[in-house]
Amino acid sequence: MYGLNKALLSDAKKLENLLLEAASQENFKILNKISHTFKPYGYSAVLLIQESHIAIHTYPEYCSLVFNLYSCRGSQDGFKAYEYFKNALQPSRIEFRQSNVSVDIGKEI
Amino acid sequence: MYGLNKALLSDAKKLENLLLEAASQENFKILNKISHTFKPYGYSAVLLIQESHIAIHTYPEYCSLVFNLYSCRGSQDGFKAYEYFKNALQPSRIEFRQSNVSVDIGKEI
Repeated sequence: MYGLNKALLSDAKKLENLLLEAASQENFKILNKISHTFKPYGYSAVLLIQESHIAIHTYPEYCSLVFNLYSCRGSQDGFKAYEYFKNALQPSRIEFRQSNVSVDIGKEI
Repeated sequence: MYGLNKALLSDAKKLENLLLEAASQENFKILNKISHTFKPYGYSAVLLIQESHIAIHTYPEYCSLVFNLYSCRGSQDGFKAYEYFKNALQPSRIEFRQSNVSVDIGKEI
């Protein structure tokens, strides 16, 4: 996401709250979370969720961030959380990539 | 990664060590780590690194796992860590996806 508010990208508390709120849009179950505030700027946070993970990495110097969500619950997972986060941040430009993963190729269960 | 050893996919300690060793192949600086052991099986772990993150999610019931690495340090980052992890696990099949991200589009620094 590009063209973001520079101050917001260093606001650890606000970003963490947005991430938690985004996760709640899809009832992702949060198991744990870690984050780091970089000097002189930048913030990373990862939510470990029952359904896998959500991570953000911010680049205030470029007014950009990376939002990475992987869920193994279902193929439509993640969109609501992503949309919520995006709508809260209002990026001027987005590079979006989606990748469908099959965990059960071979089905050796 | 598919066709993996089922017991290994539930071996939290071994997987965490492999992840840490993989990270050390590229001198990724580990800032924090979180993991979760699922019942009845399955394991997730995330390393928050200076360069971004490395995550794994295992599916012992399908003998598979997802390895997700994102680094913002350089475009060639991640390959050595991935190769190390892959060689340690010896999957019979791999679905590999690579995505190049530019964090500096707009260059508003």
